[in-house]
Amino acid sequence: MKNYKILVQYDGTNYKGWQVQKNREDTIQGKLQNILGKYTGREVEVIGSGRTDAGVHAKGQVANFHLQLPWGQSSHDLFLYLNRYLPLDIAVCDLREVDARFHARVSAKGKTYRYRIHVSPVSDVFEKRFVYQYLDYPLDLEAMRRAAGDFIGCHDFKSFCGNKHMKKSTVRTIYDIEIQEVLDSHGLKEVVIDYRGDGFLQNMIRILTGTLIEVGSGRRPADSMPEILDAMDREKAGYTAPAQGLCLMEVDYGE
Amino acid sequence: MKNYKILVQYDGTNYKGWQVQKNREDTIQGKLQNILGKYTGREVEVIGSGRTDAGVHAKGQVANFHLQLPWGQSSHDLFLYLNRYLPLDIAVCDLREVDARFHARVSAKGKTYRYRIHVSPVSDVFEKRFVYQYLDYPLDLEAMRRAAGDFIGCHDFKSFCGNKHMKKSTVRTIYDIEIQEVLDSHGLKEVVIDYRGDGFLQNMIRILTGTLIEVGSGRRPADSMPEILDAMDREKAGYTAPAQGLCLMEVDYGE
Repeated sequence: MKNYKILVQYDGTNYKGWQVQKNREDTIQGKLQNILGKYTGREVEVIGSGRTDAGVHAKGQVANFHLQLPWGQSSHDLFLYLNRYLPLDIAVCDLREVDARFHARVSAKGKTYRYRIHVSPVSDVFEKRFVYQYLDYPLDLEAMRRAAGDFIGCHDFKSFCGNKHMKKSTVRTIYDIEIQEVLDSHGLKEVVIDYRGDGFLQNMIRILTGTLIEVGSGRRPADSMPEILDAMDREKAGYTAPAQGLCLMEVDYGE
Repeated sequence: MKNYKILVQYDGTNYKGWQVQKNREDTIQGKLQNILGKYTGREVEVIGSGRTDAGVHAKGQVANFHLQLPWGQSSHDLFLYLNRYLPLDIAVCDLREVDARFHARVSAKGKTYRYRIHVSPVSDVFEKRFVYQYLDYPLDLEAMRRAAGDFIGCHDFKSFCGNKHMKKSTVRTIYDIEIQEVLDSHGLKEVVIDYRGDGFLQNMIRILTGTLIEVGSGRRPADSMPEILDAMDREKAGYTAPAQGLCLMEVDYGE
């Protein structure tokens, strides 16, 4: 058995997220496992760097799986086979053999997520599936940046965890949060928030984003973040921003 | 009554095209007319530069309509009202008062359409609604350019008209056809064909594109275009390329 690492892109709009679920085929992991099952004639487990929620996109999801190529087949044949049978909203952009010890989740050192907020009275018709259309509301980016500064570093993010029954540690380290106003490829304004950290809890980035939007729109003071962190209570944080604006950009393996 | 000119963008995927149809609301013109009807309390006709087929997109559709603004309202208020009530896949990007004689269809001097063909074994997951995914087939661009050269100028394009019962003239002038291989914003290869002409018949660009693809894939000789034009017979031309790859980019009013 050889160990293969893949780079996966998806438009998550029509999927119930990364992780395979009982009796459902509409997950990214499920689609990949089905095709690999047909290719090899046996069950193959595809290990992702982490789950993405229903509706969340990925430009740089990483996964690995162990497989014996059928006789006479190259890894490039497998690459073509996967892309031929995947639906058009999932693509394997790279496939390579890696060291047997590589594990997409355990080996990951960090992840970068991007949240896109469209701020303009005119909707962005060509990007509407990939942005949160927060039409016609100006955001105070300076206040958002001040608030975001309090999330940097190692904290218990229990207040920002969407899973109420989380039994494992809710301590995570955020390396950096960058908030920029940019013009998209069609000249329309959006606010882009890039989060880089060692890992993120369920819904964590969407709750951080919802809280920052509440700061940016003046509904919450910029200096109230430490209070929310200290409360260890989901109710104290802001709303969960919609999944469609979120995209997993990169998984870092310290290479 | 004042005359307003608007610039309209749409993702045409979920619409039955530009032109309003009896008992249907799912057309771009229909959506605009409904909202203007609610705004003014009377029927308003929105005149487009031309129809686009079901599923075709627009970055630069132009239309005009005559309207008396309600008392105290500015044209900017109307602009915001339209965008507030339009679905997220239709946007009015510009609205301005123009000379009473301006007519979006009659005043148009030319139009530019773009057809995008994705050619790569890996699908372009974020652009899949806007490209024709012609996966894994190389196209001979030089042959396609030679064939396209025979379409330039003033010709009777009856062989490239999708409407069999067309009673009006099928003579049109094509100013330019540019065929390029480009990398899209995600680094994937596509073939982009830009058509510039004084006007186009129903399905004409999609049939021209289907025919050029048949040339590029070796199924039809590059020098057979004059024959097809001369035949004045739809059956002699190639297939109708799918609507989703087509986008109306610009309407030229000689300004």
